[in-house]
Amino acid sequence: MGTEFLSLLETRNFPIQQLKLLASSASAGKQIPFRGQTLTVEAVSPESFHNVDLVLASAGGKVSRQWLPVAVQAGAVCIDNSSAFRLEPHVPLVVPEVNPESAFTHQGIIANPNCTTILLCVVLNPLHRVVPIHRVVVATYQSASGAGARAMAELKSQCSAMLGGEEVRAEVLPYPLAFNLFLHNSPMTEWHYCEEEMKMVRETRKIMAEPALRLTATCVRVPVLRAHSEAVNIEFTHPFPPQKAKEILSSAPGVRVVEDFARNYFPMPIDASGRDEVLVGRIRSDLSHPHALDLWLCGDQIRKGAALNAIQIAELLHENGKL
Amino acid sequence: MGTEFLSLLETRNFPIQQLKLLASSASAGKQIPFRGQTLTVEAVSPESFHNVDLVLASAGGKVSRQWLPVAVQAGAVCIDNSSAFRLEPHVPLVVPEVNPESAFTHQGIIANPNCTTILLCVVLNPLHRVVPIHRVVVATYQSASGAGARAMAELKSQCSAMLGGEEVRAEVLPYPLAFNLFLHNSPMTEWHYCEEEMKMVRETRKIMAEPALRLTATCVRVPVLRAHSEAVNIEFTHPFPPQKAKEILSSAPGVRVVEDFARNYFPMPIDASGRDEVLVGRIRSDLSHPHALDLWLCGDQIRKGAALNAIQIAELLHENGKL
Repeated sequence: MGTEFLSLLETRNFPIQQLKLLASSASAGKQIPFRGQTLTVEAVSPESFHNVDLVLASAGGKVSRQWLPVAVQAGAVCIDNSSAFRLEPHVPLVVPEVNPESAFTHQGIIANPNCTTILLCVVLNPLHRVVPIHRVVVATYQSASGAGARAMAELKSQCSAMLGGEEVRAEVLPYPLAFNLFLHNSPMTEWHYCEEEMKMVRETRKIMAEPALRLTATCVRVPVLRAHSEAVNIEFTHPFPPQKAKEILSSAPGVRVVEDFARNYFPMPIDASGRDEVLVGRIRSDLSHPHALDLWLCGDQIRKGAALNAIQIAELLHENGKL
Repeated sequence: MGTEFLSLLETRNFPIQQLKLLASSASAGKQIPFRGQTLTVEAVSPESFHNVDLVLASAGGKVSRQWLPVAVQAGAVCIDNSSAFRLEPHVPLVVPEVNPESAFTHQGIIANPNCTTILLCVVLNPLHRVVPIHRVVVATYQSASGAGARAMAELKSQCSAMLGGEEVRAEVLPYPLAFNLFLHNSPMTEWHYCEEEMKMVRETRKIMAEPALRLTATCVRVPVLRAHSEAVNIEFTHPFPPQKAKEILSSAPGVRVVEDFARNYFPMPIDASGRDEVLVGRIRSDLSHPHALDLWLCGDQIRKGAALNAIQIAELLHENGKL
């Protein structure tokens, strides 16, 4: 994530006077190149946030809860990638293509949503604004990157081990992911949905400002390295011709329709990886419901699912003179 | 599939006086061990079926269409693994746990259903007999084995190539499957569902004898070697407490409930591989619909999804004196 932030800040020419890289004392002193300079990672401290305008935080909920109030107190605006503040009523939860205006209501912290939720909302919202959504059933195909760089490395080393006839070890992830898959292992809730699934339910409602939106999700970790995919069934309040849905999505911000029925070519994780847009295809009338559509999407979990969305929020604030 | 048939015929002690292995002339002469003997593969010919009681066919639709009528003419009962005859009105389509009685109505050919459909029906049917199903939304996670042994080998060699920094080639499957996934590449239908998805719709209706059952499917090929998984959302006509569904499935034939919420342990392809039962878990009330349940299943695509189901049909005929 840190690497992706730096890469995006470079390529998108985000206006930076000075960039500080903050981490725990364990990483302090590490040297990292940025725009031709070499930056040194500093251990975070209460003094770190003096004269800082913007904090991009991606260090987990516990660290965000500890340090972001300190940064806000020092006058910084914080865009937080953790789930710590996402559902707090006074913290906007923002996908710039969906609810940009809510970013301007912040009180110091803006939350960056869950990756699968961002990808889904970018596609649901333009359809919902034309024909209201009644209910969504989604099954995810989530890559190892969602569990971090160590999970990606573990997937590769497990594959090597299996192909070499060696023992497969699972240390980062709870079960072997090589040539296997499993339900998302976030903590289980009282409803027997895992936290990841409940994030999709609750965060989609908040981002789309539809507190009663009906959504059910099954989240699955698959042996893919980087991009997430989702099989989405959407019931609308009225019939929605798939051709019309395709037209709307073709001009929707952050979305790219990828459909070649003759070649059987639709969105794939390897094509979504490293791209900014959410790829969507196989938009079709659901044969089981007169008001429903089925569709399939893939998006880069690290970019639009995380770092890119956070930087788009920062750009939104900057372009509107709010930084 | 041939290997799996032989292995199951051995371990299940199916009563065989004489076993013939038939193939195209390309494979004729190949020697294959069976119950301590060595059998020689013969090229199929019109004479192959004299005095044959039972044919287990797994050679694709074209071969089945050519040779099964010949076998039936010679007096054999044929259990066909291809999709050639599945939807013909006078051909029973049988999952022994679901519609065993229909096997006895055959006129020479009994069709073995599509793999994902078998796994799904074994789980849907016992629930449907208690509270009728109104609609099903399913997303599949289908292993390379569904595309044959060459696809499994290709997945492994693609992974090796990728890990070694070499070029990844896709020859058996249309796109790279290593660390990737794609929508099932069976031919596209006019409804923009692929054939695999339409098989799930039509075959489920026929097996469950519910010609108007509402079902929508998204079929996806994933980089798993052997077992298929499915995320299933089931709307019933009335509320269905998940605890009751779990009890019913716990005693349903061919099903094993695998749920350990404390360990976050649920069905996984590596655990379903080589097993006879369909594993099911995460049976939960759908928070988006008062009459719906969500559940997750995995089953060995080659066993229950194909060879085992065919042999169970043969056993059913034999045990009832119909062979």
